[in-house]
Parts: sequence; structure tokens; C-alpha cells
Amino acid sequence: MDPTDAQTACFEAGIKFGSLYHQFAGTPLSLDSADSLATAMEEAIENQPHCEAVTVDIREDALADALADGPADYTEFTGRFAEIEIDIDYEGERVRARMEMDDGYPLMRLVDVAE
Amino acid sequence: MDPTDAQTACFEAGIKFGSLYHQFAGTPLSLDSADSLATAMEEAIENQPHCEAVTVDIREDALADALADGPADYTEFTGRFAEIEIDIDYEGERVRARMEMDDGYPLMRLVDVAE
Amino acid sequence: MDPTDAQTACFEAGIKFGSLYHQFAGTPLSLDSADSLATAMEEAIENQPHCEAVTVDIREDALADALADGPADYTEFTGRFAEIEIDIDYEGERVRARMEMDDGYPLMRLVDVAE
Amino acid sequence: MDPTDAQTACFEAGIKFGSLYHQFAGTPLSLDSADSLATAMEEAIENQPHCEAVTVDIREDALADALADGPADYTEFTGRFAEIEIDIDYEGERVRARMEMDDGYPLMRLVDVAE
Repeated sequence: MDPTDAQTACFEAGIKFGSLYHQFAGTPLSLDSADSLATAMEEAIENQPHCEAVTVDIREDALADALADGPADYTEFTGRFAEIEIDIDYEGERVRARMEMDDGYPLMRLVDVAE
Repeated sequence: MDPTDAQTACFEAGIKFGSLYHQFAGTPLSLDSADSLATAMEEAIENQPHCEAVTVDIREDALADALADGPADYTEFTGRFAEIEIDIDYEGERVRARMEMDDGYPLMRLVDVAE
Repeated sequence: MDPTDAQTACFEAGIKFGSLYHQFAGTPLSLDSADSLATAMEEAIENQPHCEAVTVDIREDALADALADGPADYTEFTGRFAEIEIDIDYEGERVRARMEMDDGYPLMRLVDVAE
Repeated sequence: MDPTDAQTACFEAGIKFGSLYHQFAGTPLSLDSADSLATAMEEAIENQPHCEAVTVDIREDALADALADGPADYTEFTGRFAEIEIDIDYEGERVRARMEMDDGYPLMRLVDVAE
């Protein structure tokens, strides 16, 4: 069947999450550069169609812990260093999706689908 | 409202498309390396959950045209050099999505949502 | 033969250029998000060892021209939208490298090697 | 001072390493997809100028160990899952560079510079 507008809104939410994650995974990241990376991720993905808002919160405690365990003062951006929320509006169908830690691993999921 | 399984299947399809595109955009690409890049894209994204199949067809004519116009025998992978189809199965809800050229630009869209 | 310190400094400069380019190529980019992307690129790569400074200037005229030609108000970051300068100091050997347009294509090159 | 050809060869070697690493870091990776990713990395980077050969060996034991520790049958490509060797020839100056594990962390270095 052809997709409904709500299903397309969910598809668009997924595109934004996959884009954000795989564009920026691997970026050199320190406590000093965390804010600028978060802002760039938000503004870059908000360019994409039907994307109302992107919020990236760097998990600074997790980042500090990882840096304390390693030999350098920076590491690579990966999912356990951020919580991300994305709001989509496709033809009036509004979708909210989130990436957050679940049992030690980052999980992307739809949290709300509303007309 | 909580998402339906079909909506989640559409979200998962979007994640795979965004992942594939932004992981591999910018990869150095020539006619000689097109096959290995296509195979790696397919097998990498098929690792992701609920992903049944990924098919990447490099648009070799478009690539040859771009190389003929430029100064080098390679360019960077971007959407106009591939048609991509992705099949998702989430809890029995099956979704097919595709990226193909639309009026000169690559467009990602859901093509079928079925129980 | 083993590399000299100056040769290693040149190798380090190359690593930073390849990293910056291929980490961020493909990022959704508009006139509104250009500043935050440039700042994130600078701060991310400055985390890497032996990297003294990174300067990214978005070529806003080239970006505006590309957007005027296309159907959307954003495009993907690629080399023709930036001039980049990177300063390396490896064991007192200082290297400056630059990416700038050369006959219509972005070219990375060493501009100065000094003790 | 202007760079020597040997210094430029070292710069080119660095570009290839940074490119390879940051293009492919974050790619979904399993034991089944390791070979296709390695081949694509080699062929993609061999497209770049002055690049004679790229060899990517996936460290399958390290990958198997990481998968045994995690909840999924795939992970993300990062430096500890590969040993990489790159050969450059710039105007007859030949450079070999390598990425391999050093005290638990991947290290990129020049191994030989020869006329």
C-alpha cells in the first residue's frame, strides 16, 4: 500500500537520525569541543526537509569517564556520548524521536506520533 | 500516541537510508571501484536491525559523464550516482523504500508498506 | 629510511586534512548553518595531536551560487565550499598546509615547512 | 620553505590515512561484512592521486571479541579493528605508512621514506 502521511513522517524522522549519526560518528571530540559539535549537528540536520527541531545534548559525564580511561584528551564521537531528540512535521503529522541509552547502548526510537 | 508497528517499520527504513547515505557520501569513487563500494554499502547496512535487504545500483552512465567533465578519473560518491532499494521487516510489517532520481535530484521515499 | 621530524610533521598535516574533509563531506549545509559547521570543523580537528590551529572559511559566494542553481535551500558540504588552513607543530618542526580552489577544483597542498 | 618532494609524499600519505579513517569510521561491521568493507576501503583510497597501494586487514579476533562483549552481532568500524598499510609514490619519492595497534590504541605512522 501507499504510505500514509504519518508513516512518511516516521520515515523522515528515521532519515534524520541515520544522517546525524553516520555523518558525525568518528568526529574527534573533547570536553572543549563538545558544544560546537552539538550546535553543528543541530543546525546541519535542521536543514533537512520536514525537520522542525534537533536537540543534541552531549553526555559530558560519559565523555569525561571515557577520557579518564584513555591515553588522550579526546576521543571519537559515538552514540553513547549524546542524547538526541528530533521533531518532524510532515503535512501536519508530527513525530518526535529520540536516541538515548538503553541498557548501556544507544537506542533510536519513536516516542510520539500525533496529528 | 505510541507508534504502530508499521510506523516503526517506516522509521527503521528511514534510519537505514540516512545511515547509508551519510556514511558513504564523499567516498572516492571511480568506474573501477564502483562495484566494491556498492557491495560494501549493501553488506554494511544489512547488519542493522530489521533490515532484510539492501540493493545499491551504481548509475555508471551518470558516473562516466561526471568523470568526463572533470579533471580526475575519480569523484566523490553522492546521491546522483546510485539507485538504492531497502527492505525492512519489523514485527511482520514490511516496508520497501527507494532512493532514485527525481527531476535531477536524488529523492528518498517509501514505495510500499504492507502487513 | 626512517622519517625525519619535518617529514613526520608533513604526514601529520596530511592526516588532519584527510580527516577534516572526509569526516564532514556530505554534511547538510546552508548559509544559516555555515558558521556552526566551520567552528565545529576547526575545534574537532584541533583536538588531534600536533595540531596548532585550523581555520575554515566557508566560501559563502560559492555556496550561495550553488543554492541558487538547485531546488533546495541547502546542499552538501564539499571542498569547493571552503578554504582551509592547518598549522602543525611536530617536535618544533612547523608545517602550514592549505586547501583552496585551483582551476575550479579544491587542492590540498603544503605551503610552508620550517624549523 | 617550499616542501621537498619527499615531504610532499609524506603529506600525501597522511591525507590518505585521514581520508580512509574518517570516511569509514562508524560503518556497521560484522564478521560477515568485514571482507567487503576492507575491499571497498582499499579500492576507494587507491583512487586518490599518488596512491600506489592500500592494504586493509580486518583484525577479526579483535572484532569477534568486541561482538562477544556486546548485545548485537555487529558493531561500528573503528581503528582497533584494522591494520592498514599505504604506499605512496610522489615524483619518485616512495613512502610507506601504517596504522597498527600501539599499547591498545591505533597509531598511524610513517614506516619508510625512500627515493
